[in-house]
Amino acid sequence: MNLESYLSKYRSGFSLEQAFYTDFEIFNAEWNSIFKTSWLYAGNVAQIPKAGDYFLYHLRHESIIVIRGNGDVVHAHYNTCRHRGSAICLTDTGHASRLVCPYHLWVYDKDGELLNARMMSSDFDKTNYHLHHVHVKQVEGLIFISLAKDAPDFSSIEKSLAPYLKPYHISKAKVACIKKHTIAANWKLVAENFRECYHCGGAHPEYCSAVIGANLNEDVVGLTHTKQNDWKERGLETRLVEVTDGTTTYAIRYPLRPGIESYSVDGKKVSVPMGSHRDYDAGVVGLVNYPNFWLDAVSDYVWTMRVTPIDASSTEVEFCWLVDENTVEGKDYEVKNLTKFWDVTGQQDATLCENNFRGILSQAYQPGPYAPVEDQVVNFIDWCINKLKSGLSRS
Amino acid sequence: MNLESYLSKYRSGFSLEQAFYTDFEIFNAEWNSIFKTSWLYAGNVAQIPKAGDYFLYHLRHESIIVIRGNGDVVHAHYNTCRHRGSAICLTDTGHASRLVCPYHLWVYDKDGELLNARMMSSDFDKTNYHLHHVHVKQVEGLIFISLAKDAPDFSSIEKSLAPYLKPYHISKAKVACIKKHTIAANWKLVAENFRECYHCGGAHPEYCSAVIGANLNEDVVGLTHTKQNDWKERGLETRLVEVTDGTTTYAIRYPLRPGIESYSVDGKKVSVPMGSHRDYDAGVVGLVNYPNFWLDAVSDYVWTMRVTPIDASSTEVEFCWLVDENTVEGKDYEVKNLTKFWDVTGQQDATLCENNFRGILSQAYQPGPYAPVEDQVVNFIDWCINKLKSGLSRS
Amino acid sequence: MNLESYLSKYRSGFSLEQAFYTDFEIFNAEWNSIFKTSWLYAGNVAQIPKAGDYFLYHLRHESIIVIRGNGDVVHAHYNTCRHRGSAICLTDTGHASRLVCPYHLWVYDKDGELLNARMMSSDFDKTNYHLHHVHVKQVEGLIFISLAKDAPDFSSIEKSLAPYLKPYHISKAKVACIKKHTIAANWKLVAENFRECYHCGGAHPEYCSAVIGANLNEDVVGLTHTKQNDWKERGLETRLVEVTDGTTTYAIRYPLRPGIESYSVDGKKVSVPMGSHRDYDAGVVGLVNYPNFWLDAVSDYVWTMRVTPIDASSTEVEFCWLVDENTVEGKDYEVKNLTKFWDVTGQQDATLCENNFRGILSQAYQPGPYAPVEDQVVNFIDWCINKLKSGLSRS
Repeated sequence: MNLESYLSKYRSGFSLEQAFYTDFEIFNAEWNSIFKTSWLYAGNVAQIPKAGDYFLYHLRHESIIVIRGNGDVVHAHYNTCRHRGSAICLTDTGHASRLVCPYHLWVYDKDGELLNARMMSSDFDKTNYHLHHVHVKQVEGLIFISLAKDAPDFSSIEKSLAPYLKPYHISKAKVACIKKHTIAANWKLVAENFRECYHCGGAHPEYCSAVIGANLNEDVVGLTHTKQNDWKERGLETRLVEVTDGTTTYAIRYPLRPGIESYSVDGKKVSVPMGSHRDYDAGVVGLVNYPNFWLDAVSDYVWTMRVTPIDASSTEVEFCWLVDENTVEGKDYEVKNLTKFWDVTGQQDATLCENNFRGILSQAYQPGPYAPVEDQVVNFIDWCINKLKSGLSRS
Repeated sequence: MNLESYLSKYRSGFSLEQAFYTDFEIFNAEWNSIFKTSWLYAGNVAQIPKAGDYFLYHLRHESIIVIRGNGDVVHAHYNTCRHRGSAICLTDTGHASRLVCPYHLWVYDKDGELLNARMMSSDFDKTNYHLHHVHVKQVEGLIFISLAKDAPDFSSIEKSLAPYLKPYHISKAKVACIKKHTIAANWKLVAENFRECYHCGGAHPEYCSAVIGANLNEDVVGLTHTKQNDWKERGLETRLVEVTDGTTTYAIRYPLRPGIESYSVDGKKVSVPMGSHRDYDAGVVGLVNYPNFWLDAVSDYVWTMRVTPIDASSTEVEFCWLVDENTVEGKDYEVKNLTKFWDVTGQQDATLCENNFRGILSQAYQPGPYAPVEDQVVNFIDWCINKLKSGLSRS
Repeated sequence: MNLESYLSKYRSGFSLEQAFYTDFEIFNAEWNSIFKTSWLYAGNVAQIPKAGDYFLYHLRHESIIVIRGNGDVVHAHYNTCRHRGSAICLTDTGHASRLVCPYHLWVYDKDGELLNARMMSSDFDKTNYHLHHVHVKQVEGLIFISLAKDAPDFSSIEKSLAPYLKPYHISKAKVACIKKHTIAANWKLVAENFRECYHCGGAHPEYCSAVIGANLNEDVVGLTHTKQNDWKERGLETRLVEVTDGTTTYAIRYPLRPGIESYSVDGKKVSVPMGSHRDYDAGVVGLVNYPNFWLDAVSDYVWTMRVTPIDASSTEVEFCWLVDENTVEGKDYEVKNLTKFWDVTGQQDATLCENNFRGILSQAYQPGPYAPVEDQVVNFIDWCINKLKSGLSRS
């Protein structure tokens, strides 16, 4: 059966056919129709505080150099020399005043211009051999890239995320910790898992201790209403943003359980209030941008999750914890304490995703009905199907 | 070249073309025409003595829950939740009074009925969401399953095996040990290896010490005749069962070397007489059921081998040792002593199979002639070819 | 896009399209059009000094037994029993007065004749079951094999290599050390790396210390001219052999840096002069035979490199160090000291090749221009393209 007939069989409200989670051709179609046409979260500027600082973002066969140029400009290049194609940057993070290919020493500027190529013939024109650029955009210190030929519109992402991000001062923030994990599951199962709390009550005791209502058993209408008014008065963004036709962003602010200060295992604060925050009452800011970005911020830290498909059956997730620029490790926060909440919760989710994937491999698997409380999953899956349909109609 | 032309080129009495041992498409055809149309040995009821005890049988992408229901009923289910497909049982063996999916806590009864699905909409009908069943049959405590839509006939298997198995009281027996190995060889090479003793003289000194005639150099006609009469008088089954058109079972009883009590490295008994046996004179019961079951029983223990293809080039074998229900480990048997004979012999066979597979990978390999003493291998290969032909004519 | 259109797009002077380094179908075409039609370096006779000594050469699915017969004859056989295909020799090197299959004990002579097959039926004709032969040729102790049905001409290889090899007395030499590495790169990248010194100045400080001009910054015309005259007077071969239409061999002698005695990290000799050499003034003999053979010899040792593709993305290289027959380890040479120069330089090259391969995987990679000093790489790539074209026109 081909992709077209799978797409025509899709029934919104039911999980996808097995092939969408396992088939290489469909995975490839997703790569082209979703990942190569969208803005992808790459990282944040706090990871590259000085000109020449860079990190690599590996996506399938691509290695993208995200490098800070002069001033606040961030460049993104394919990590491929224009001579014989060697990788130029060899470590996942580093610093380079010039980008020098280790093979035959061709030298590029931070913006990708070829500065020097030894011993080439006299008719060799350096201006034809810039590094291949990747589109790059920033919103409040978060860096998004696009592998598309023509980058899609970024304004709706910027508009949705900026007011929520602003108080955190991410551009000046400090990276406390970055961790990567590989999950043996299709990337959509990871994304689905992070779009519903139907599983939270059974799977996430720590998360449910921090977030009132996460178990779907508690009435939070009154509390939420009170808190929203409070946040508005203090100038904190509260507008719910949902993914609709042509947009990719979800944004929300919701309350912690009364008495809880932060996302932590014991409910107590794990760092000092971040950016312009002055207390622990900002609740939780939850941001999503399809297909690969998640952010949960409490008053004292920002946590981001970058989801990167490796192949149809495995997915890399990268967690990053950001704290206030003026914190001192050991005094204002302990990395172990700061990261424990998402270490524990993330591991629980990884296991759920891997079990989900294993079960889907069976010939007996068939699409099952989502529960009403899984409506955001349906939204995400619908979005994927529509992107695949658009991709088909273009090709 | 396609399967059809390979099948038409097959010449009985010669080993198969390379593609039958290496090609993914042919492996897939075998999966559909052989493994999905046959009764497959899964395990035995001694592995799940109490209601709610279960084990998982992993076959390629399938994970089958074999669970003891109430009374002596055994159920088999696909390990795939009807909600979003998660695996339900996560450990290879366990106990569950109810089958609860770890993802969103849907609850099933041991017989697969959906008992509870939280927060589903009012029009959700639980009776449509039973776990998908797998056919299951028992013969004297051995459990066979079928992944076929309509299960094949089981009566000839039952009729052939039951009289040989009866004295061992497997339903009440005790599992002394289970071990799994992965062999880097096509599954048919493992099966072929266990259908001939042309290799025994050179490869299996321990086996040849225990089994008179295994080296094909000793005259055993007189001894066998005497023993057969003796066994018959004592009510032990001796009828030779061979695989013929439409059947899959081979069964035989043959003598140990005079003075040898058991399958053991030193020839001495390794446990107490099992079931209704009262001495060490029952010889060897050898049972085979195509495509995945082997059993060798001596007076004091039963050894089973379950052969499961992983892919065209690797195969899992599971050995299980059963002893009498009343034995006490450390007093009546030592696991190390009990298992050593098949540990050693099985390792020798695994190495032979892996070397065989490696050699077949060469472009120079061509089907070679089986020796007359390898007639049972020819029987097995003919059976495989016929199953593949039947599969082709059905499709 | 298919191979034909890739070949038609090839532009000499530019590196190849990505697919030539990554695509399985093109790799397979190379296997058939290049590796199965060429003479391949297998090893040398010093590895098998006595009749019955053998080594295995593993190439993809093939395992070739290279065994010394009686006298100086070397035989090569596919390591596949004619009965059921088992591998016969199980260790990478060994000694066997007869080749006995470990499965069912069929016995072959060193020349491949089937001497004994137990219990076969009376109409079995042993003369039909010789081991399948592989073509084999020697030149001055180096062993080349061909997997072709009809072996290609060997005379031009012999003619080019023999005068350079003769003084080293490889037939009587001593194998000091053999090492194997796997490089995560397409085999052509490894071959390309060893056809240019554009990278040497930046990557190989040890090599540039030993070889004057390797950094491409030093004038060596005068020195080379003086040395050439000196070598000619002493009867040492100096004729430059280049790969032209229908030939596969490159050969050259060039000077070491004045004062340098050998290829060593400190520039000092690492063994005694080899074969008929009486001093350390023979310079460097550099030999290449497309597609898999490299040799660099200095006065006191011979180093060979055998390049074997594993798949499109990985390559095995085997280094062998040969020293004079009369040397004593610990007295005349230390293995660690002898091998350090190529250990270090080879590791540098492996890293360059792996980085090159990684960068080529990007969608942004496109063929880049070779520098004029990379003309030998162009020669090699042109040769590969022509072999692929010939293969296409044959099929």
